[in-house]
Amino acid sequence: SPPPGIYRRELKVEEFSTMYGRYTQELGVYAKEEAARLRDGGVRDGGGLRRNTSVRSRAADLLEYEKDPCAKCQLCASRCQKFLISRVGEDWIFLILLGLLMALVSWVMDYAIAFCQEAQKWMYGGLDSNMLLQYIAWVTYPVVLITFSAGFTQILAPQAVGSGIPEMKTILRGVVLKEYLTFKTFVAKVIGLTCALGSGMPLGKEGPFVHVASLCAALLSKFMAALFGGIYMNELRNTEMLSAACAVGVGCCFAAPIGGVLFSIEVTSTFFAVRNYWRGFFAATFSAFIFRVLAVWNQEEETITALFKTRFRLDFPFDLQELPAFAILGIACGFGGALFVYLNRLIVECMRKQKTINKFLLRKRLVYPALVTLLVSTLTFPPGFGQFMAGQLTQHESLVALFDNRTWCRQGVAEEFDYISHHHAWKHPQVNVFITLILFIIMKFWMSAVATTMPVPCGAFMPVFLIGAAFGRLVGEIMAAMFPDGIHADGSVYPIVPGGYAVVGAAALSGAVTHTVSTAVIVFELTGQISHILPVMIAVILANAVAQALQPSLYDSIIRIKKLPYLPELGMGHHEKYNIRVEDIMVRDVRYITLNSSYRDLQEMLLTGQLKTLALVESRDSMILLGSIERLQLQSLLSLQLGRQRRLEYLRQLAQDNGTHDHLPSLTTDSTPSSPCTHTHINASTSARQGVRFLVSTQQFSVSRHPLSSQIAEWEEQQLDEPVDFKNCKIDPAPFQLVEQTSLHKTHTIFSLLGLDHAYVTSMGRLVGVVSLKELRKAIEGSVTVTGVKVRPPLASFRDSGNSTNVSEVTELHKLCIRHRGLSLPREPNPPDQNNDTTRST
Amino acid sequence: SPPPGIYRRELKVEEFSTMYGRYTQELGVYAKEEAARLRDGGVRDGGGLRRNTSVRSRAADLLEYEKDPCAKCQLCASRCQKFLISRVGEDWIFLILLGLLMALVSWVMDYAIAFCQEAQKWMYGGLDSNMLLQYIAWVTYPVVLITFSAGFTQILAPQAVGSGIPEMKTILRGVVLKEYLTFKTFVAKVIGLTCALGSGMPLGKEGPFVHVASLCAALLSKFMAALFGGIYMNELRNTEMLSAACAVGVGCCFAAPIGGVLFSIEVTSTFFAVRNYWRGFFAATFSAFIFRVLAVWNQEEETITALFKTRFRLDFPFDLQELPAFAILGIACGFGGALFVYLNRLIVECMRKQKTINKFLLRKRLVYPALVTLLVSTLTFPPGFGQFMAGQLTQHESLVALFDNRTWCRQGVAEEFDYISHHHAWKHPQVNVFITLILFIIMKFWMSAVATTMPVPCGAFMPVFLIGAAFGRLVGEIMAAMFPDGIHADGSVYPIVPGGYAVVGAAALSGAVTHTVSTAVIVFELTGQISHILPVMIAVILANAVAQALQPSLYDSIIRIKKLPYLPELGMGHHEKYNIRVEDIMVRDVRYITLNSSYRDLQEMLLTGQLKTLALVESRDSMILLGSIERLQLQSLLSLQLGRQRRLEYLRQLAQDNGTHDHLPSLTTDSTPSSPCTHTHINASTSARQGVRFLVSTQQFSVSRHPLSSQIAEWEEQQLDEPVDFKNCKIDPAPFQLVEQTSLHKTHTIFSLLGLDHAYVTSMGRLVGVVSLKELRKAIEGSVTVTGVKVRPPLASFRDSGNSTNVSEVTELHKLCIRHRGLSLPREPNPPDQNNDTTRST
Repeated sequence: SPPPGIYRRELKVEEFSTMYGRYTQELGVYAKEEAARLRDGGVRDGGGLRRNTSVRSRAADLLEYEKDPCAKCQLCASRCQKFLISRVGEDWIFLILLGLLMALVSWVMDYAIAFCQEAQKWMYGGLDSNMLLQYIAWVTYPVVLITFSAGFTQILAPQAVGSGIPEMKTILRGVVLKEYLTFKTFVAKVIGLTCALGSGMPLGKEGPFVHVASLCAALLSKFMAALFGGIYMNELRNTEMLSAACAVGVGCCFAAPIGGVLFSIEVTSTFFAVRNYWRGFFAATFSAFIFRVLAVWNQEEETITALFKTRFRLDFPFDLQELPAFAILGIACGFGGALFVYLNRLIVECMRKQKTINKFLLRKRLVYPALVTLLVSTLTFPPGFGQFMAGQLTQHESLVALFDNRTWCRQGVAEEFDYISHHHAWKHPQVNVFITLILFIIMKFWMSAVATTMPVPCGAFMPVFLIGAAFGRLVGEIMAAMFPDGIHADGSVYPIVPGGYAVVGAAALSGAVTHTVSTAVIVFELTGQISHILPVMIAVILANAVAQALQPSLYDSIIRIKKLPYLPELGMGHHEKYNIRVEDIMVRDVRYITLNSSYRDLQEMLLTGQLKTLALVESRDSMILLGSIERLQLQSLLSLQLGRQRRLEYLRQLAQDNGTHDHLPSLTTDSTPSSPCTHTHINASTSARQGVRFLVSTQQFSVSRHPLSSQIAEWEEQQLDEPVDFKNCKIDPAPFQLVEQTSLHKTHTIFSLLGLDHAYVTSMGRLVGVVSLKELRKAIEGSVTVTGVKVRPPLASFRDSGNSTNVSEVTELHKLCIRHRGLSLPREPNPPDQNNDTTRST
Repeated sequence: SPPPGIYRRELKVEEFSTMYGRYTQELGVYAKEEAARLRDGGVRDGGGLRRNTSVRSRAADLLEYEKDPCAKCQLCASRCQKFLISRVGEDWIFLILLGLLMALVSWVMDYAIAFCQEAQKWMYGGLDSNMLLQYIAWVTYPVVLITFSAGFTQILAPQAVGSGIPEMKTILRGVVLKEYLTFKTFVAKVIGLTCALGSGMPLGKEGPFVHVASLCAALLSKFMAALFGGIYMNELRNTEMLSAACAVGVGCCFAAPIGGVLFSIEVTSTFFAVRNYWRGFFAATFSAFIFRVLAVWNQEEETITALFKTRFRLDFPFDLQELPAFAILGIACGFGGALFVYLNRLIVECMRKQKTINKFLLRKRLVYPALVTLLVSTLTFPPGFGQFMAGQLTQHESLVALFDNRTWCRQGVAEEFDYISHHHAWKHPQVNVFITLILFIIMKFWMSAVATTMPVPCGAFMPVFLIGAAFGRLVGEIMAAMFPDGIHADGSVYPIVPGGYAVVGAAALSGAVTHTVSTAVIVFELTGQISHILPVMIAVILANAVAQALQPSLYDSIIRIKKLPYLPELGMGHHEKYNIRVEDIMVRDVRYITLNSSYRDLQEMLLTGQLKTLALVESRDSMILLGSIERLQLQSLLSLQLGRQRRLEYLRQLAQDNGTHDHLPSLTTDSTPSSPCTHTHINASTSARQGVRFLVSTQQFSVSRHPLSSQIAEWEEQQLDEPVDFKNCKIDPAPFQLVEQTSLHKTHTIFSLLGLDHAYVTSMGRLVGVVSLKELRKAIEGSVTVTGVKVRPPLASFRDSGNSTNVSEVTELHKLCIRHRGLSLPREPNPPDQNNDTTRST
């Protein structure tokens, strides 16, 4: 049993992580300390090696995310022979099922959310006699829902917290995040999200829906695998399906199939295989179709139309001279988007650093979301401050109002059109429409940034979209006020359409926050009109250009905050990265085994290192890389050598040699499952991961207990000294190799393209180093960090950029040459001087 | 000088190739024959080795497309150190310039085409007194234009013939097609295309525009490189810019930026780097913007709108119950698309096989296009058969009419709405609108298939789009006739909109022919309405599913017809490819050099082989792959060893050894440029490509002429026997490696992903084979050929699909082990039996 302190401290770490997902760094630091403490304790304990290592292994599990053995290195040949036997028919069925399911989930959730919001309105409306009661009703409802959502998620599956897009990005990169794709998480995410959105807080549905769709796909895969087996077990196929699922998630959330596919590609992929394109399109279209058909069947709509249908005039959507205004709107949205990402990160980091706040908030883990909700809903209370910022409207109602094709005010005075639907919320007797809009934008801006840090399932896309729409509307109204008869010089009067500005602003701001261009397509599909295509495209591209220069995307920011094992993108226009080479960042102290290695070397290697694969080289002198071997393979090799079978054989032989057969029965009884010795051996074979440790401990057990202990110990020593027999070992004969001169840029490209986890660095076939994702990440973050601290590798400045052959490489090659000629042509009398070789060798 | 027959025969080959671009196979066969003939001749000639090889090299140049040394293997480390220093600012400028230029080209071309067509109409209209004169005017005009286009293209740059998308696909794959991106081609393509489209034949602008935009980008790159140098020289950067240029091409052709980007990705890429996404979007948006702004400035339009603006009702675009009709339309379009691709290929192959037709057509290379044009324009002559198929309308007019939002007939009777614009062309006093549409579809179908085989710059997208629109209109009109009051059951009457069907049909048929989904986005952008998104998506996906199952895409079909060096896509659902491994297709007879190789080996290797790179292995016994060396490097090594410098040094030394200095002046005078010996040496150093051959010939010259000839010959022999010094040689230390067990599917993925040209096959570091694009293509075409002949590799069936370690591999490893232990542990007395090793080694 571990020391009593462990669980308490773990709990604390978990508490700490509630605020914003998992904080791996803290976990890592904790795990290291814990491991060190226990190691010392283990040494003091004397024989407690076994317990020690097993605890250490748990700490190590916490320390590093487990990598998927198959997706890790898509090139490794020996493992992936059963690659992707994709029977297309079954793909279609799978995608149809996925689309159907997600459409149902999306529709039911929308229905539930609408119901929740109606309930709140009903309560609020019914209590209009007493404002205090009204306030309590208005505030309590969201606080209860958010607290329930946070608590439920926390208890059932803390992985369901947050957007899910950063995690999906990481998973599609080939890293397996434990527990991120389980049924528990699915339940927690769906129920938590429904409650969170039902509360009316400025939260979004899109990000979590990407996660929900992926969960759905993963569970469906498992289900189909259990039912039909075969291809549904394939890891790579699952990855393809996951990327289709991301498209479905966006597609059925907005009824935007094309935008969904493009957005999911932009947000989750680095390199995209065009041959998987159709999967996403098909599934997203089907899902969006079903989603809208459900609305028709439920009599909500007469036929299939867009979610936020606009009715802008078709013949003259906008004037050419309005384009500068659209461009300025785009640039402003770019700054706004960067500010939003920065604000969001600032809040998280602030909360984390403030020790006193932290302690209080973490002790009561539901206090933080409850407090935030209380604050936000107090401020939006319609009879209070909410009257100045259209506080009574839901997100959906606000958007419909903002996309309206009528002008709200003309020349500063509000028009007296019939206030159907929700326009009266924007009109206040004392206050201008402009003031309402500005207040709405400012308040919603920080509220959204704060609300998305709550530990509930929530996205930031929709709130940002809404803010963008409001900002666009503001610009549009200002334009309409400035040019009441439109800008067009010729005869006919075409008044300015502020709704068009709202559409452009929504696309631009959401594009800036997420660093995507496809929000343009999403708005076309959401509004059902494409007439503003050029203004939207111009604004989105400008907003992207500005935002990308200032801040990472929201998802990359969360990846950094959560310290997910993702390779950051190389920034644009940073010259340093072209001057960094693999030799600057590689780990030179590679752990390797040679063809001559003894089992003892193997054992030592396995006990001290934590790497998942080990390099196999020809010999310590030549260092020629022959391949790589998985840790598991080595463990099984070792247990084969020292295993029960061999042990028994040895004892039998021993008995034969002694000529006395009476020893044997005692030995066989000794090897029954009741004996602790063989018991551990069985363990060793079942749990291959801890095989080595058990063997070590077994050895010690053997020494202390067995009557033939000394002989067995001697035998074991002998066995360990034998050279390893690689005959039954699966070797990956072509692990990925780089050379020392490979630039950081290219290494990054290769790692992203192939989804590599590590690559060996060789020089003329000789193993000289290894680069893993970790080193690469460090190097990139060092050179292109956003906070301005740029670390240049010490060697980078001492190099010329010429492409002549490296001196050391030549020397190495020469040595190899000479060594080799020395072997094959031993009669050569005097090796000539190396430098003047060419000229004097005659 | 080559034998007189060569040029004549070449000419014939070129003549032959006029009909449909270049026929590499014929060229290849010719080149091989020529080479064999000359080789025999060379042997008979005796000393004519030099001329022989140089002619052979020309033949070899014809035989194989030259690969780009940098794009060939994007991973090769030593070459690409100056990888992509992309200063973003300069990218922006480049993209803006490109967009501006292409928008201008597109607009001017449209203007010229419209002018041409107006001229034809004017001529035709002015001669309405005499039908014969009218006919001659109607027919002569396009024949002259097409003949001029064909002749001009043929004379200036035959590479400009055809669509250009297949070639761009190949170029973006990393293969350099000679002369495809030159200024001559640009001029030929632009002028040829303008004439071809001005003739009014059913030809398209899109495909050629992709080519024109790429040409523009390539030329602009060259220009900027000449102006600013630096990054504009980078090959990989140019590839990125080319892929952006493809997007610009489509974007400014249709004023469809998003559709352009997506279409170009789908059509040209296999794997797409999302980080290059913005380039395409930015350039295409800018280009589309300028293209439309030019129209506004020219008073053609009031403001920026879509090219084929539709005015469908927004509130109820279509009924849910119409969806089955849309789905059937999609499936029918799928079959139609496959039929079109098949028909197109059939025509080309027919023309090629028919010897007699061939001979006639090829002798007069302009006869074929003239005949086709004559036939097509005769059939569309408006007072003749053209009256039954709206022959007088241009493509643009037809499309506008087909996308009209009114119904043409109700219950079979044509409606009497006011025949503004071009609707009267569809109405015929005797014939039903249905008959007109059906005739239009059938006639245009085969006309387009035939017309796109003419040797002029032309695409097939627009004709196919038009046919699809007509087919959709037909279905829509039938639906409208069947349900005159619409399908909707509730109170309000929503009549069916046949124009919506036309939009769906256009997207579906063009999607089916090109195997893309993004045609859906293109129609939204073309029509400026997105209300039919779901029908369009459903129809396009169904059409794609049907067409992809039946035929390759039009572009892949042309790639096969032209035998371009492109890796075909793996078909879906073919199981054989998972059972083929690299060992089945690899070339086992690899050409390699060892560390012990002498210069003589090198010389022989260079003289006999044609490979661009050679493998470097440790030794003939170990065969451990150390790297690969480019042919050029080896040639320079060889010329260094036998070069003038060394030769002079030797002679000087000889003179010193002899103690007589009077020889030296004669030698130095001998080494002046006037001497044939040194003259060839200078040649050798300048034209490194033919270095070896010159050296060989020099040797012969030396033997015959120089006074010290015997000594020099001896010296040369001595030099050739020396082991190669690799010190000054650039070696790629990490060429791409596969293992024997790698599946065909994965090999294909890796080759496409990394743009490889060849990969070495290794087994435990030992070189066992090489796979190049050629073998891979053969294997894929063998297993997934469309014509039904499936070649299974002989070994494939004898293998189990298990993933246990291969026996031979184990044996190899074991041998290596033993060999190695034998070296390092020589005291081991008796190597144990290999099979019982594990059990008996105790």
